[in-house]
Amino acid sequence: MSEFLNSRLRQLVPYTPGEQPRDRQYIKLNTNESPYPPAPGVVAALGERQAAQELCLYPDPQATDLKRALAAQYGVRPQNVLVCNGSDEALHFALLAYAADGRGAAFADITYGFYQVLAQLYQIPVCRIALRDDFSLCPQDYIGLHRTIVIANPNAPTGLLLDCGEIERIVRANADSVVIIDEAYIDFGGKSCVGLIEKYENLLVVQTFSKSRAMAGARLGYAIGSPARIADLETIRCSVNPYNINRLTLLAGTRALAEQEYFNANCRRIVQTRSETTAALQELGFFVLPSQANFVFAKKPGISGERIYRELRQRGVLVRHFDQDRIRDFVRITIGTPEQMQALITRLEEIL
Amino acid sequence: MSEFLNSRLRQLVPYTPGEQPRDRQYIKLNTNESPYPPAPGVVAALGERQAAQELCLYPDPQATDLKRALAAQYGVRPQNVLVCNGSDEALHFALLAYAADGRGAAFADITYGFYQVLAQLYQIPVCRIALRDDFSLCPQDYIGLHRTIVIANPNAPTGLLLDCGEIERIVRANADSVVIIDEAYIDFGGKSCVGLIEKYENLLVVQTFSKSRAMAGARLGYAIGSPARIADLETIRCSVNPYNINRLTLLAGTRALAEQEYFNANCRRIVQTRSETTAALQELGFFVLPSQANFVFAKKPGISGERIYRELRQRGVLVRHFDQDRIRDFVRITIGTPEQMQALITRLEEIL
Repeated sequence: MSEFLNSRLRQLVPYTPGEQPRDRQYIKLNTNESPYPPAPGVVAALGERQAAQELCLYPDPQATDLKRALAAQYGVRPQNVLVCNGSDEALHFALLAYAADGRGAAFADITYGFYQVLAQLYQIPVCRIALRDDFSLCPQDYIGLHRTIVIANPNAPTGLLLDCGEIERIVRANADSVVIIDEAYIDFGGKSCVGLIEKYENLLVVQTFSKSRAMAGARLGYAIGSPARIADLETIRCSVNPYNINRLTLLAGTRALAEQEYFNANCRRIVQTRSETTAALQELGFFVLPSQANFVFAKKPGISGERIYRELRQRGVLVRHFDQDRIRDFVRITIGTPEQMQALITRLEEIL
Repeated sequence: MSEFLNSRLRQLVPYTPGEQPRDRQYIKLNTNESPYPPAPGVVAALGERQAAQELCLYPDPQATDLKRALAAQYGVRPQNVLVCNGSDEALHFALLAYAADGRGAAFADITYGFYQVLAQLYQIPVCRIALRDDFSLCPQDYIGLHRTIVIANPNAPTGLLLDCGEIERIVRANADSVVIIDEAYIDFGGKSCVGLIEKYENLLVVQTFSKSRAMAGARLGYAIGSPARIADLETIRCSVNPYNINRLTLLAGTRALAEQEYFNANCRRIVQTRSETTAALQELGFFVLPSQANFVFAKKPGISGERIYRELRQRGVLVRHFDQDRIRDFVRITIGTPEQMQALITRLEEIL
């Protein structure tokens, strides 16, 4: 233990990202990346010599062009938009802004593990609210909490979706608290609640380019909310890292938004492959939660999630297993290309 | 004022980066960027189609290749290296790790303004230590402070350098505190104190690719220290943003380190232009501090720094002016190409 480190931080257990092994080529179905490359216009723009040569200059600290493009995309104004070094950074700023002063936070017992890591970092008291037995979220449990609320919608790692009406009910019933809706996976079948930000000052919607926009490697996320909420977060951003987004990522993000057709087609392909994969897994005797994300969460009676994970790994396929009580039997499987999913099914047949 | 925002953060005054105006083309001598493009190998690597196509995949969260290259560059091991989204992020993590628990921080009254912004963010009590009248730092003032110490070396915006012997004296005389040496500008004439990290557990050296490596737009910085210090900071990094560096920046950083010749030549060119610029400014009656950075800090009796800044701006040249008591008479002028500096001198002749 470090004698220099801030005593409050000595017990920190950092977030464990999905493994990124370098020992061999795997079929990577473990970190919910897109199996498709970024839009052709993104690839073309990044290939231009001038973009690389201008790296000697700082990026635009206001991300003017990207904010404008995001605002147009969502029918809001640029002052409704914060852009961040991945949506993790938006979550970081939001929890620091709205929960790190004793108010505390509330989120589900089964959800994205990073919320708990951030809470730990800032000593935020957390109320974990148990999902129902079927892993659905009970909106009634989120009424008048007087804490900052974080809901992943669709939830991870379950893939289950809450509809906008239920979100609105929660936002309305917590007028004194900020409600953060993490929509990292919203484009694979869900409906975003961005439309509600005009009505509710306490709503913050977080999204990312990592999944549906196929740009996990570029690190780009954003938050959409009222001008007052965005101003709060901009103050923190400019106090932490005023140049938080590099030039190439700003460029890539702006170009990606210009290719809506490519984006829509990829989302449709993944939804289609998800439905085929679900059917094939059910055929093998798996129980599969009805996912609205680019992954499925599945278990098979009689074989542990850990064993499925391990045996698949030996056969060159990576999926994600979480060592947490209620979900120990499950594995989370990212939806890749149809060929990758066929390979997964074949390996599973070998194992079973 | 936001009723939702953490009450401790309502008074935050964020860092003001140098202006990045978009109204016209300026000769930009205000943010200490390199006037030269990144190394040819960097530009070539970023132009490869595969790099852009692989943006659908997350970056290596351990930055293995880049850490290895940095370690080789500085004769240390990869576990001595932390890589960050700009050196501002390294400073952020270090102040959170070593000063945010009541211990407090100490730094000069005239130095990089971002330290104070970070201190404010985490309510870190700060002892500001006045530089001497000639803006040099008195090492005697930094003995046994029992606080985390931050020293920019060379200092900004003065450009004055402390030698490694003086740094070592300060590090040795504060064995119970971490001493952070911010060497953003060290490659323009100074000698890095990285060599001391083997001897002192309490030393952390921070550097950046933004200045001498001509990659301000890529956002890449790093810290070098003992394995224990780096482990402290890695815990924070993985709790805040485990994928903090995007793929293209990792690639660019690794390639940049392979082109030492290009790097050395650029540093030599800037040092040469600095000396010519200093002479030309002196010829015009300016007092110029002896800079070891890629900028000069200069004033001219009888004309305010603000007026020089304003009149240059009207003529299409941006320099930086700081509205702070002891340095109000000065402007900070980044060293650009010889042609840019000639344009500056011509405009100054018009003004005077």
